[in-house]
Amino acid sequence: MKFRLLTPGPTPVPEETLLELARPMVYHRTDEFRAMLAEVLAGLQHLFVTKNSIIPLTCSGTGSLEAALVNAVPAGKKAITLVAGKFGERWTNIAKAFGIEPVVVSVPWGQAVTPEMVQNALREHPDAVAVCSTLSETSTGIGHDIEAFGKIVAATPALLLVDGISGLVAMECRTDDWQIDLCCAGSQKALMMPPGLAFVAVSDKAWKAFDANKAARAFYFDLKKARKSLTTGDTPFTPAHTLIRAMRLSVRKLVAEGIENIWRRQERYATATRSAFIALGLEIFPERPNTALTVVKVPAGIDGNKLLATLEAKYGMKLANGQEEFKGKILRLTHMGYIDQFDILAAISGVEYVLAEMGAAIDLGSGVATFQKAMAAER
Amino acid sequence: MKFRLLTPGPTPVPEETLLELARPMVYHRTDEFRAMLAEVLAGLQHLFVTKNSIIPLTCSGTGSLEAALVNAVPAGKKAITLVAGKFGERWTNIAKAFGIEPVVVSVPWGQAVTPEMVQNALREHPDAVAVCSTLSETSTGIGHDIEAFGKIVAATPALLLVDGISGLVAMECRTDDWQIDLCCAGSQKALMMPPGLAFVAVSDKAWKAFDANKAARAFYFDLKKARKSLTTGDTPFTPAHTLIRAMRLSVRKLVAEGIENIWRRQERYATATRSAFIALGLEIFPERPNTALTVVKVPAGIDGNKLLATLEAKYGMKLANGQEEFKGKILRLTHMGYIDQFDILAAISGVEYVLAEMGAAIDLGSGVATFQKAMAAER
Repeated sequence: MKFRLLTPGPTPVPEETLLELARPMVYHRTDEFRAMLAEVLAGLQHLFVTKNSIIPLTCSGTGSLEAALVNAVPAGKKAITLVAGKFGERWTNIAKAFGIEPVVVSVPWGQAVTPEMVQNALREHPDAVAVCSTLSETSTGIGHDIEAFGKIVAATPALLLVDGISGLVAMECRTDDWQIDLCCAGSQKALMMPPGLAFVAVSDKAWKAFDANKAARAFYFDLKKARKSLTTGDTPFTPAHTLIRAMRLSVRKLVAEGIENIWRRQERYATATRSAFIALGLEIFPERPNTALTVVKVPAGIDGNKLLATLEAKYGMKLANGQEEFKGKILRLTHMGYIDQFDILAAISGVEYVLAEMGAAIDLGSGVATFQKAMAAER
Repeated sequence: MKFRLLTPGPTPVPEETLLELARPMVYHRTDEFRAMLAEVLAGLQHLFVTKNSIIPLTCSGTGSLEAALVNAVPAGKKAITLVAGKFGERWTNIAKAFGIEPVVVSVPWGQAVTPEMVQNALREHPDAVAVCSTLSETSTGIGHDIEAFGKIVAATPALLLVDGISGLVAMECRTDDWQIDLCCAGSQKALMMPPGLAFVAVSDKAWKAFDANKAARAFYFDLKKARKSLTTGDTPFTPAHTLIRAMRLSVRKLVAEGIENIWRRQERYATATRSAFIALGLEIFPERPNTALTVVKVPAGIDGNKLLATLEAKYGMKLANGQEEFKGKILRLTHMGYIDQFDILAAISGVEYVLAEMGAAIDLGSGVATFQKAMAAER
């Protein structure tokens, strides 16, 4: 049986990139490697839509969030954390771990924090050093209005920190135009790579804040030290250099398509996918869905855990379950990265099969037909 | 020209492991992945010679040092750092970054910190929470007497933290028998993997200290959280799971040979390599050489930078230069990991060629002949 990976990270990796990972080991303190790293970072500037310097880190995406927060906010100071799901909570938890006072602005899962809430939080806490948001909240599929947040935060001394790990490249995000001070990304999502690398784009306002943060508790994640190493094209510690070498190939593909084209494609995929599930009678879970993934409610009377298990066992398709209280109640399907419309069509087909087998009252074929029509209409 | 990588990290990776890295992406929250991780960690327990739990981290080796130190030592408390080179200094610098007071015990590069120095430092600083050492100090090639340090530290409330990144598996190191509380390793040295993974073996004494360290500044490197995740076979954050999957193959090779056999082989390699360079009239740099790498002084009148550049350009061999003030003055050749006696023979041959070409008064062929005889004698 053919296996299809459709979780919102890790995502499939292009075959050429995988083969590159099998190439022999080389040393990393060489001009050859420095050129590879420089190419990857230049490509990322296009994809982040930024002129800011981008710092590469060898870690999971979460490491980049820690790097952003601990360099920006001194212990004892406040960070406003916008919590619309599991990954928003992560900002709160990192803050607590480093003695930073989190000011939590939360909404129920499935909803998005609004610009008004951000405005009010900053008014009540003018001493907040940072506002921390997710771009795509992967646990629920909502997207935040980062452009609006950026306008509000830029008018204050606070920094805007954005967890773009699962959203960046898969949905519109203009780091500079939207005034994002620290924009974080992980390799295993829309960047079409295995996990192991993370990146942070740092604004001038953020670098100034780092200089003022004398009590920063960071060594491995010291972004100032990393910037200094980058002046000679290096990293402060041995990087996962074979991942960087392979990443050139994935980044080249993305840059060749162009970020605006990628966003447009993602928008078409997301719109068509939502319409397919709606045609099947399913409800879209997030009130403000983003284009990185589609999250739908499992129909009443259907066991979502069983649905996903069957989908994998019988049809070889791995979609993601809901997390925490939403386990078994929602299913999450990504359309970012190395996934095209025909992969999504296959996934919708698989979900239709299993829903029908489990006795859901669906009109078999209406999902794939609706997807097909929606894609054709938007060509 | 055939390329030969002989730097003390990254080291060559077995071909089967490289091919495994090219396999398609999978999801990581599955029983299949949990079984892979469990196999790697069980293999590492054999290689670390420990019954302690081993925590996997996605980061460079330095990340594991930070994890060990910040979990063990509260801010404001003392850590004795044993500094015999660049990597010993790293302990000092991590301590400073986290507000830990380093008590530095240092020796000139090329020398080793002695057990007496450790004993004296602990006597003068009975309030020290940790003693931090390197196993192999890769910048100089010395090996520390961790067994003796362990006896001294175990008699106190302090913890023994060992940077085994470039020494573990390549030289004798018995984590439990030698009473190492936190033993750190990186994937890209004797473990025959690309960089990107690190590991920390944690003793019961260390877990108790972590519980008492209420002010630990750690999130990504929170080892207690990682231990909790491991109870279900997971990691707290998305791991570099394709590296873990591939690492099974490298670990299987090492476990099949057996750690005692690996150490014996490394001892033979190191002894024979040293005798070869001595036969060529070169001087061994470290006063207490270890078996992970051989570090020799460049003969007077020879430019070490040119020697290494020629070796690479003309013979395709990448050895490591000295660092900081020893750049151009020493050369470093590893014999750990996926390197066998014939690779070392080739390296000695290459060094002989370049030395002769640069006008050094050597007896061409005496290096390789001595190596050959030494290996044969020890069969």
